[in-house]
Amino acid sequence: MERQVFNFSAGPAMMPAAVLERAKDEIRSVGGIGMSVMEISHRSRHFAAILEGAEQGLRDLLQVPDNFRVLFLQGGASLQFSMIPMNFIAPGETADYIITGFWGRKALAEARRCGDINVIYDSTADGCKTTPEQSDLNINPDARYLHYVANETIEGVEFKYDVDGMGVPVVCDMSSNIMSKPINWDKYAVVYNGAQKNIGPSGIAVVFMRDDMFDRIRGEHHTLLDYRAIRDNDSMANTPNTWAIYMVGLVCDWLKDQGGVEAMEQRNIEKAALLYNAIDNSDGYFTGHAARNVRSNMNVSFHLPTPELDAQFCREAESIGLDGLAGHRSLGGVRASIYNAMPRQGVESLVDFMHDFAQKNG
Amino acid sequence: MERQVFNFSAGPAMMPAAVLERAKDEIRSVGGIGMSVMEISHRSRHFAAILEGAEQGLRDLLQVPDNFRVLFLQGGASLQFSMIPMNFIAPGETADYIITGFWGRKALAEARRCGDINVIYDSTADGCKTTPEQSDLNINPDARYLHYVANETIEGVEFKYDVDGMGVPVVCDMSSNIMSKPINWDKYAVVYNGAQKNIGPSGIAVVFMRDDMFDRIRGEHHTLLDYRAIRDNDSMANTPNTWAIYMVGLVCDWLKDQGGVEAMEQRNIEKAALLYNAIDNSDGYFTGHAARNVRSNMNVSFHLPTPELDAQFCREAESIGLDGLAGHRSLGGVRASIYNAMPRQGVESLVDFMHDFAQKNG
Repeated sequence: MERQVFNFSAGPAMMPAAVLERAKDEIRSVGGIGMSVMEISHRSRHFAAILEGAEQGLRDLLQVPDNFRVLFLQGGASLQFSMIPMNFIAPGETADYIITGFWGRKALAEARRCGDINVIYDSTADGCKTTPEQSDLNINPDARYLHYVANETIEGVEFKYDVDGMGVPVVCDMSSNIMSKPINWDKYAVVYNGAQKNIGPSGIAVVFMRDDMFDRIRGEHHTLLDYRAIRDNDSMANTPNTWAIYMVGLVCDWLKDQGGVEAMEQRNIEKAALLYNAIDNSDGYFTGHAARNVRSNMNVSFHLPTPELDAQFCREAESIGLDGLAGHRSLGGVRASIYNAMPRQGVESLVDFMHDFAQKNG
Repeated sequence: MERQVFNFSAGPAMMPAAVLERAKDEIRSVGGIGMSVMEISHRSRHFAAILEGAEQGLRDLLQVPDNFRVLFLQGGASLQFSMIPMNFIAPGETADYIITGFWGRKALAEARRCGDINVIYDSTADGCKTTPEQSDLNINPDARYLHYVANETIEGVEFKYDVDGMGVPVVCDMSSNIMSKPINWDKYAVVYNGAQKNIGPSGIAVVFMRDDMFDRIRGEHHTLLDYRAIRDNDSMANTPNTWAIYMVGLVCDWLKDQGGVEAMEQRNIEKAALLYNAIDNSDGYFTGHAARNVRSNMNVSFHLPTPELDAQFCREAESIGLDGLAGHRSLGGVRASIYNAMPRQGVESLVDFMHDFAQKNG
């Protein structure tokens, strides 16, 4: 079955065709047991093997150190925006936040319910086109943690280095660029993500937490909002999203077949370069949103000369099978999300369309 | 493809074969759009139609009144154990809880983090085999709400009437018997459930909340933990579990084909009677857990003369395709969960096996 559509949605996002085919083959009987993965008990040996496989897949691909726990939770990255400050900030304590886009602000809004947050960098006034240099950051040594978003999906702004917390634990939302490249674990205490971009379907978050962070948790919390309870119950403090965990495992298997995240990084750099070159060589017809030195390899945000042309571009693209290109409602314009599952051919088709559209409507 | 296994798991649980076949057919291209439901944006018109269809399916089947909102959340019923008291009890306020089993105690434990809870009935000391009569209940008129679990999945104890709150709003966990029969909405202010028994896969909860309850919410809460935010964002305060919502819609379509919840109720009564008759006619070889007048039509918990025979029974049953019969770890014994998707044939097979086993091992 040939895929007809290239789906540039920011998330939920395109999934590898091979993964969907395998899910299709196994949906009535996973592992030949005569039952769907959706039907079996999360405490069955069948599901235990699936959960373990998904975790091991992530550990293998990202070379997760042994002193990090892998937790599967519900509520996506958005619930992590709340759980992080709830768990790590007691009344009177503080944390540092770096704001480079929409999702950083969302995380900040929830954190402010828990304590007095120091915003140590904020590019909002300039439209969130940049990231700070390490030397720009005055990190508060009393901060319980330093939070930032590695890749801002809407603005298409991506950190090109790992921020150093200077002794303060770094908590990083990698929702939209996890699995796109290796992770330098030395720099992070907590890495979290909503899965629905590069790991699996929506409805699940993966949290990688260094062991010592569990001891830094303040106070008592409701069971499903306490990382210690999630850890102590091996991600089964309640019934987990079994289908999504199964899909994570399938995506990991596929990524291994593709050569792992190192091979993916190279392909992602090449795919992004095709699009940014098309923007840069359009004589100003297309304008990229992000500053050139922090352009995202996952989300390419740009606009045409007018909002009307933006809309026409997305409409005509959809009609030829290039779907999901409308920019986020907060920014408008066009956004092409090109996660791991987007084949180079899809990007090439979009580049061709950009060229044709500019010629016809320039 | 013939199903080989009857799956008596308590949840995640057996799904209708026709639903799984349809999901299989559509997994690469939902509604013929060339994309999987897992790939499309939750804000796309494609998904908007799926979300609306799932809600309408629930509304049609359960005849949900217009003054109830239907909310889709993550975290299952377990997160509702926390969200209910967080939203409805301010410091110094109280609520009434009825405890008839394991899940009621779980709900109570979270509620106690929020306030001083009155337990107005608790059958724990007697092994949770009963429910109270309405006349047993001394409802505190100052209680912010009255909470109970309509069907205790582990003990197999089901309320045979709708508790009257006597003016206090009734909040009911119907996780394991929703969709098994009609709901008398006049008696309830909030009905919630984890979907993974009678509605869909795990990873989603459905909350039916009467409009006036939103005005009774106390204080400010994190966005994903505040029912008002979920309502105001039409269940999309964050990316919802799109696959599960899609599956809910498919289950609703199937239920309509089966004649709706009224027809299901009749079949469920008949299926349960087959099993309870097998227990009652076994000359004491099988012993049911629940008192006869409150036996659950969804979860039939019983035990054999010894724990060793319980284990042998489950092992041999599994070997002939009767899966998931081991009782919950907290109670032991045998538990047959016979939700809507369990065909009568599956129950008949189990009854036959019970008869044979008792003859061989009696």
